[in-house]
Amino acid sequence: MIERIKSLKVKELGAVAEEIRKEIIDTVSKNGGHLASNLGVVEASVALHYVFNSPQDKIIFDVGHQCYAHKIITGRRDSFSTLRQENGISGFTNRCESEHDIFNEGHSGTSISQALGIAKSNKILGKKDYTIAFIGDGSLTNGMVYEALNNCDDKDLRLIIIINDNEMSISKNVGGMHNYFSRIRTSKKYFGFKRGVEKSLSIIPLIGKPLARFALWLKNRFKKAIIKANFFENLGLNYIGPVDGNNLAKMVAILEEAKTKRGATVVHVTTKKGYGYSFAEREPQKYHATGRFDKSQGNNAMPEPCFSLIMGKKLSSMAEENDKICAITAAMCDGTGLCEFEKSHKERFFDVGIAEEHAVTFSAGLARNGMLPVLSLYSTFAQRVYDQLFHDIAIQGLPFTLMLDRAGLVPDDGITHQGIFDYSNFASIPNVIIHSPERFSELEEIMERVIPRDSFDIIRYPKGKERDYTPALEMIKNEDMEYSRDVEKSSVVIITYGRITKLANQVIEKAQNEKIGLIKLIKIHPIDIEKIKSLCAGAEYIYILEEGCVQGGVGQSISAGLEKRCYLHGIEGFVHHGKLEELYTACGFDADTILGNIENRR
Amino acid sequence: MIERIKSLKVKELGAVAEEIRKEIIDTVSKNGGHLASNLGVVEASVALHYVFNSPQDKIIFDVGHQCYAHKIITGRRDSFSTLRQENGISGFTNRCESEHDIFNEGHSGTSISQALGIAKSNKILGKKDYTIAFIGDGSLTNGMVYEALNNCDDKDLRLIIIINDNEMSISKNVGGMHNYFSRIRTSKKYFGFKRGVEKSLSIIPLIGKPLARFALWLKNRFKKAIIKANFFENLGLNYIGPVDGNNLAKMVAILEEAKTKRGATVVHVTTKKGYGYSFAEREPQKYHATGRFDKSQGNNAMPEPCFSLIMGKKLSSMAEENDKICAITAAMCDGTGLCEFEKSHKERFFDVGIAEEHAVTFSAGLARNGMLPVLSLYSTFAQRVYDQLFHDIAIQGLPFTLMLDRAGLVPDDGITHQGIFDYSNFASIPNVIIHSPERFSELEEIMERVIPRDSFDIIRYPKGKERDYTPALEMIKNEDMEYSRDVEKSSVVIITYGRITKLANQVIEKAQNEKIGLIKLIKIHPIDIEKIKSLCAGAEYIYILEEGCVQGGVGQSISAGLEKRCYLHGIEGFVHHGKLEELYTACGFDADTILGNIENRR
Repeated sequence: MIERIKSLKVKELGAVAEEIRKEIIDTVSKNGGHLASNLGVVEASVALHYVFNSPQDKIIFDVGHQCYAHKIITGRRDSFSTLRQENGISGFTNRCESEHDIFNEGHSGTSISQALGIAKSNKILGKKDYTIAFIGDGSLTNGMVYEALNNCDDKDLRLIIIINDNEMSISKNVGGMHNYFSRIRTSKKYFGFKRGVEKSLSIIPLIGKPLARFALWLKNRFKKAIIKANFFENLGLNYIGPVDGNNLAKMVAILEEAKTKRGATVVHVTTKKGYGYSFAEREPQKYHATGRFDKSQGNNAMPEPCFSLIMGKKLSSMAEENDKICAITAAMCDGTGLCEFEKSHKERFFDVGIAEEHAVTFSAGLARNGMLPVLSLYSTFAQRVYDQLFHDIAIQGLPFTLMLDRAGLVPDDGITHQGIFDYSNFASIPNVIIHSPERFSELEEIMERVIPRDSFDIIRYPKGKERDYTPALEMIKNEDMEYSRDVEKSSVVIITYGRITKLANQVIEKAQNEKIGLIKLIKIHPIDIEKIKSLCAGAEYIYILEEGCVQGGVGQSISAGLEKRCYLHGIEGFVHHGKLEELYTACGFDADTILGNIENRR
Repeated sequence: MIERIKSLKVKELGAVAEEIRKEIIDTVSKNGGHLASNLGVVEASVALHYVFNSPQDKIIFDVGHQCYAHKIITGRRDSFSTLRQENGISGFTNRCESEHDIFNEGHSGTSISQALGIAKSNKILGKKDYTIAFIGDGSLTNGMVYEALNNCDDKDLRLIIIINDNEMSISKNVGGMHNYFSRIRTSKKYFGFKRGVEKSLSIIPLIGKPLARFALWLKNRFKKAIIKANFFENLGLNYIGPVDGNNLAKMVAILEEAKTKRGATVVHVTTKKGYGYSFAEREPQKYHATGRFDKSQGNNAMPEPCFSLIMGKKLSSMAEENDKICAITAAMCDGTGLCEFEKSHKERFFDVGIAEEHAVTFSAGLARNGMLPVLSLYSTFAQRVYDQLFHDIAIQGLPFTLMLDRAGLVPDDGITHQGIFDYSNFASIPNVIIHSPERFSELEEIMERVIPRDSFDIIRYPKGKERDYTPALEMIKNEDMEYSRDVEKSSVVIITYGRITKLANQVIEKAQNEKIGLIKLIKIHPIDIEKIKSLCAGAEYIYILEEGCVQGGVGQSISAGLEKRCYLHGIEGFVHHGKLEELYTACGFDADTILGNIENRR
């Protein structure tokens, strides 16, 4: 499609945009995926490929969830129906799929740094290609963006930063920057005026004496200050816009203008989230990421009970009783189940934007003043906050609870969204306590116990529902673990935790020739190794099953403390997209594989 | 001293400042420490304690290295001579020392988030206390600062952000923000003018007809844009300044003005680094952090050969031959030994400011375009970049080398500066390779081998020199490890890596009743566990000695793979400040302790 687009006249591009839009609605209604943001940027994507020459010119999509039109344009129209299916195309940009995808994306705020690296090396290499970062206003709440913008003051760069201002990040947008954009948008006069002033100033010499001196003084001393008044211009970048990003002719024109500038240029584009699909235009937040739905009816699915909602409900009810409890989210109010808390305890609810680092350190400030901060992050995005947990929480000895949502394997989204590294990452922080509930009731019990106390706790739980099954063995339970009644007498013991415990039960049921004992950990760090030693006293073989990274994982922590033969069955390397069952199979998480491993031990 | 300051008249404060300045020069010349930045903020610190009521009003120093005057003022004058000595006072703010120290600090860019958390909770609690973040312009290159500033648009906050603009971070400052500040400073007229315009606009109605329409239009449509032109005002904060921060009367006046504002207020203060000590004023960079010196002569110590300098020299010479090699630093050109590279390969040298996250992702951009980026960070500051290494380097499969300086125990600086968590933190990233040279020659050999290749390598080395000693055993060497000739026949084997290998040799020499074998790893991840198994075939007891965190450390990785009795001797918990030998003792890193452990194994 890319050649076809380039061969058209500007006024003919609209028809292509409509084709793409239809394709996106068709596929997302069948497969699920990001909808509203992709519909909003169809015209912008067409215009980008019309004006620039990808892949020599490199277009980088921040987060990469809004790349569907780009994928359809760049040779993936036929495969687009496999979106987010195992072995199908990914929901994010992906280097393995196409030379037009510059990076695998998934986390926010990286595009300008990436683009700047390419643009600087183009300068070194004497190449004239353009590098384009396409970034939503939501990502502008992330600090990395400013670290990058602060390094763009170089007139030799062919770097274009397109700010896709749709007045929302994932949920509604927050912060001073958002208000600043609102001011720009609502006073388009400002921009008309800015050009007016430049013009007026240039004709000032013609104007009568009395005010000429004032005007000249104005011109000479202040012109620069006026012209440089814009936030981005303060940092040494060019700034043009805002322009209607759903208007193809205007988009093409402003991108052509951007190409003529010297140095890094910010192009401010306003788009409508959900554009062209009435359901999504009306409720863009609901259609940010969606499951399968009937496109003629819209998505009317009711949210099912899941760990996120249970967490949010419990926290809200605890905050009723305890006026010190605060809830903090990094632009994921909906996703982490905090909408009820936001409504009922507005003053103690803080959405700080896509700013995970700040979220932790801000929580430290709350805690330092006597509050009880509870921060909810997705496991994968929490990879950003090791140092803040270490430096601002743990060293200070402050009370703090981190709710890690989407811990473990995450279906559909792929390599950048797996929640399987958090234990390896965080267990080395001194004094941290990590819990991994399998059941809703365990989650609630842990929250009840740890949030009010003076400790630093992490509670990790998977996406979706708790799993239904009948335990294979009679279990003895305390608040930190469950173990089967005869575990001390078992020659093989499976140690596991969290959602994958169901699989351990299936293994035990299916085992014909073995009497296998079971230990299910609820608190996974620090581990009571003496207790485990005594429970494993009769075992000759320990099978540690974990839905997480092997390196630095729970398995290594335990096996280093036991002088027993241990088999560590966790996850090695990266995990791509697919349904949860497919990911389980890819990791060898099925009863036959595990039974085979156990039988092969001799 | 705090009561005395409060009892004085403003004009009497100068004498107190002089006393404090003398105390700082005396102690730092004896103990070493941060000098230039502390001398620059003596007046500002006195003014802060004069105007605000610490500790009800909370003063937070970003990084905390510039807190010496604050410590002397707040009850630590008598103990100040113990600065940075074991059991003495810390070189950074420290909660254990005083209620006036709000956080233990050490890493950059956290103060505004911390202060905002306190200010927001004061609002919730109905308290009228002020919270003050005191932050250098260097820290303004860090992204967390913007994440925090973006959340300050709240008129009910009693939050004051003092920007200490000394035109430098640790070395010279970089970036668009720095240039913006220069423009503000060099055109003080701007500020005079800004007030002038407000005044002029107010008298416009008096001026004759012809231009009145233009003027009115100017007034109505543009006044807000002009007044809001400032970078911070764009984000919804108040902004006042700049003011001479070494002038006590002016400092007191502007802080009093700040107290009258509604909402978060930025006070822009300019200070002179090294103020009042001629040597430091002339060469502030040299006196940023200094060892012991003769205060009448200045610090004339020549830099000794150390890992940082060897690294920089080697990289520079490699870049001579290979025009793809780029060097990146996060405001640590000097500290990481890159000054020579900067001089000889200016175009391929990038100091991005205190912006570790951006540094990694920017490197990813360079690599994506065919360059060979080499980024040097201190181990402790690299705690910020797990996600960027994971998302922007490892997932993309890009060639990248991270030089981790100050890995292992770091003397003097204390709890926030230990380089003992990097292995635990990074080894879980798929496909990373980690090296830990003990000798300069090993460092050079590894660099030579890995920088040009298509892999993601981390090379970690300690602060200071390589250690001199005669090996206790004859060693067989390959590029990834050394082991003693008879290791397979030893009943006890010590496995270790890096600087602490000297101690392992001392243990072996001192051992009377044991024949101990030795394995020194050079590549510490991934570990060739089959090779280690075969080398340890005859051993009944493995002693893994590591100058790093036990949890998720090399010891756990190895012992999980061996079915042997292993003793993991690494570091547990936090480590405070002291000389290296003192820190070693605190961690049980001495020959007698280790021999005792080995003997007690039965």
